[in-house]
Amino acid sequence: MDLLAQLRAGLPDEAILTDPDVTGAYARDMAGFCDAGSPVAVVLPRTVEEVQHVMRTATALRVPVVPQGARTGLSGAANATDGCLVLSLVKMDRILEINPVDRTAVVEPGVINATLSRAVNEHGLYYPPDPSSWEECSIGGNIGTASGGLCCVKYGVTAEYVLGLDVVLADGRLLTTGRRTAKGVAGYDLTRLFVGSEGTLGVVVRAVLALKPQPPRQLALAAEFPSTAAACEAVCAIMAAGHTPSLLELMDRTCVRAVNDFARMGLPDTTEALLLAAFDTPDPTADLAALGALCTAAGATEVVPADTEAESEMLLQARRVTLHALERIRSATMIDDVCVPRSQLAAMLDGTAAIAEKYDLTIGVCAHAGDGNTHPTVCFDPADADESRRARASFDEIMALGLELGGTITGEHGVGVLKKEWLARELGPVGLELQRSIKQVFDPLGLLNPGKLF
Amino acid sequence: MDLLAQLRAGLPDEAILTDPDVTGAYARDMAGFCDAGSPVAVVLPRTVEEVQHVMRTATALRVPVVPQGARTGLSGAANATDGCLVLSLVKMDRILEINPVDRTAVVEPGVINATLSRAVNEHGLYYPPDPSSWEECSIGGNIGTASGGLCCVKYGVTAEYVLGLDVVLADGRLLTTGRRTAKGVAGYDLTRLFVGSEGTLGVVVRAVLALKPQPPRQLALAAEFPSTAAACEAVCAIMAAGHTPSLLELMDRTCVRAVNDFARMGLPDTTEALLLAAFDTPDPTADLAALGALCTAAGATEVVPADTEAESEMLLQARRVTLHALERIRSATMIDDVCVPRSQLAAMLDGTAAIAEKYDLTIGVCAHAGDGNTHPTVCFDPADADESRRARASFDEIMALGLELGGTITGEHGVGVLKKEWLARELGPVGLELQRSIKQVFDPLGLLNPGKLF
Repeated sequence: MDLLAQLRAGLPDEAILTDPDVTGAYARDMAGFCDAGSPVAVVLPRTVEEVQHVMRTATALRVPVVPQGARTGLSGAANATDGCLVLSLVKMDRILEINPVDRTAVVEPGVINATLSRAVNEHGLYYPPDPSSWEECSIGGNIGTASGGLCCVKYGVTAEYVLGLDVVLADGRLLTTGRRTAKGVAGYDLTRLFVGSEGTLGVVVRAVLALKPQPPRQLALAAEFPSTAAACEAVCAIMAAGHTPSLLELMDRTCVRAVNDFARMGLPDTTEALLLAAFDTPDPTADLAALGALCTAAGATEVVPADTEAESEMLLQARRVTLHALERIRSATMIDDVCVPRSQLAAMLDGTAAIAEKYDLTIGVCAHAGDGNTHPTVCFDPADADESRRARASFDEIMALGLELGGTITGEHGVGVLKKEWLARELGPVGLELQRSIKQVFDPLGLLNPGKLF
Repeated sequence: MDLLAQLRAGLPDEAILTDPDVTGAYARDMAGFCDAGSPVAVVLPRTVEEVQHVMRTATALRVPVVPQGARTGLSGAANATDGCLVLSLVKMDRILEINPVDRTAVVEPGVINATLSRAVNEHGLYYPPDPSSWEECSIGGNIGTASGGLCCVKYGVTAEYVLGLDVVLADGRLLTTGRRTAKGVAGYDLTRLFVGSEGTLGVVVRAVLALKPQPPRQLALAAEFPSTAAACEAVCAIMAAGHTPSLLELMDRTCVRAVNDFARMGLPDTTEALLLAAFDTPDPTADLAALGALCTAAGATEVVPADTEAESEMLLQARRVTLHALERIRSATMIDDVCVPRSQLAAMLDGTAAIAEKYDLTIGVCAHAGDGNTHPTVCFDPADADESRRARASFDEIMALGLELGGTITGEHGVGVLKKEWLARELGPVGLELQRSIKQVFDPLGLLNPGKLF
């Protein structure tokens, strides 16, 4: 086959997989409700030059290419299309440099988030973005989807930590964007254009990342509320008072009960909403006390501050296992990712509860409450056609509600194939047209991750 | 005249200026060495619809448009071109909303930076970007040039505070980008594309800005060093130790002496470099003590921490008057804006001193040292042709040095007309081509701020 022969001219044999039993494993990410096709081959380059060879070959033969990281994404952005070449970056996994004076790291895209985090920790540094898949997800994937995590309320999303990129373009040319400096305003910000572009504009092969000094270990608190409204009132009061917690998470009743059933964590089963907060400040105990008082004022029935790091970790563990716990309720879950202005959080939660009732579904909501970023998780049985239909309908209705409340259809998971019909609604016709024109500039043949985003 | 007649159809008479004595005042910003042409008219719209009318008219008649803020820019990006329409946004100066729960402000582009800062302060909030022109410069201009300031070492640049924009496109259509939420990854990041685009892609008519909680008042310290190398060593040690000062500025000997001559501030006239640092943390005295110890270890001959806010302000005042002080040395100054990785700061300062010697010029350097962002300021007499030539040559050589050290030609002032020949060198051919293609997408007729950036 012409494609394989040409690929072999610039790639070692072991970097090209064609056995359908093997390539099938690269067909999809972790998103539900998303179609995936069959790739003709999977390539696993180890160098920038090999990626350039792949893209040159794909352009010459007009073969679509799906760039792929660790496939932990939740929007189908890394799903194969029929006849595509999957370009997996997982073998390009070297940390090339860590510089404590410049507070930068230079990495290849396949580096695992947790690997980088631990490596920079050894230099007293901190790479904040911490998606819940951080033990498995890759930095390249984080850049492709502009991933967030628990840290965002204080430290922001991946986009804030990407200073510069090396990108292989659709035609194989190498583009360097951005800078290695703390500041820089020379020309349009192409770096940010690539962050969150889901592999549709180019293939990130190297990234210069900004690092923070390692903060003190965080100390957490849990607060029980008799209603989600009261919990949201506490969130608003905390933010309006000028607090900057390192984490501010909300779990609704469904999540709390699911976690108890799953892990016997002894959470307060009767609570309507649990708020988890943490500080990584010099005096977290004092800060937690102030925050706890605001919770009490908002109606919290109990406020439990951790005294030790170990206690903190136990509290946070509840949040970390929530998705797994919800997955036990039905055989499948569909996790949404609507972000609203935090002043609209209560309306978003109330509306989501009403949608669950309307469609007779279990929808557990945990939220990065400090960001207004909710993850309503619809539990359903894919074997039940009617329940599946209702699940999909509720999922869409939740996005509509988010837009109505001034929010976005995706706070951190991306658009992929899952939400591409919704992107047009959020962007409007002018925005959509410009976005398509930008795609056209970078990928005139439409070979990079076709059918994603738009 | 057709243009004026058509403009009058959608603008009140007083919003259109045509008297050359008046319009001449709108011809240029604060950059030296930059050509400026004569506008045919200046328009001062007060509404989004009026801006749309201006752009529709300009497109219909193929008249180039120069969007303009408060004209405090330092790269000539707001300079008129012959026959252009100057579109001044200064009358669109309303703060539309300040929301302490969402920590957002919604503003029109003509709002003065200091006006916004004070307004949000009253809500316990903080808008960090603080270019030295903050009392005069406009938010729209700050967005156009992605302005920085003294705050950046801790709080970053303007780009980090722009969540969403309303932009009038070249053809008069209105585009809304971004979001009002803390996070959002729906589609390509067009917001960031506009930040720093210097009016070449569209006209920003509204911005949603992120705010921070107001930090405690900062407390400052001054440290004298026997060499710039020792001061830079201290900067590296401070950052490597994980400190996050709210300000970390360096003034070289030329700056210190100029300030003393100008303002009789009693700075140590014999010092080779003065470092100013501040903390806005809960315990600034302790943090300053730790930072001071690092200065001493790096060779500081004296370390003077302020005990009070008033003392702090006196120390920082020296930095704030530096440019005015340097302007006294010769009749003109040309301020450069090269940013290098902070580990290269000493090399940048040494190299700049060598360039000053080579060209027999006075070049005072102050630097946002924590960012590696130097502002070498070339003092010269424009009436002296030879000195002017040497000034321009030294300015260019400083940029070349910055690029050589892994830096950028502009950390925060922008490209405008001053540095457009240098942009190509920094971006390289692939980057430049893509940037031009993006310009083409937004402004196919090339009417928006022609001759700037590229």
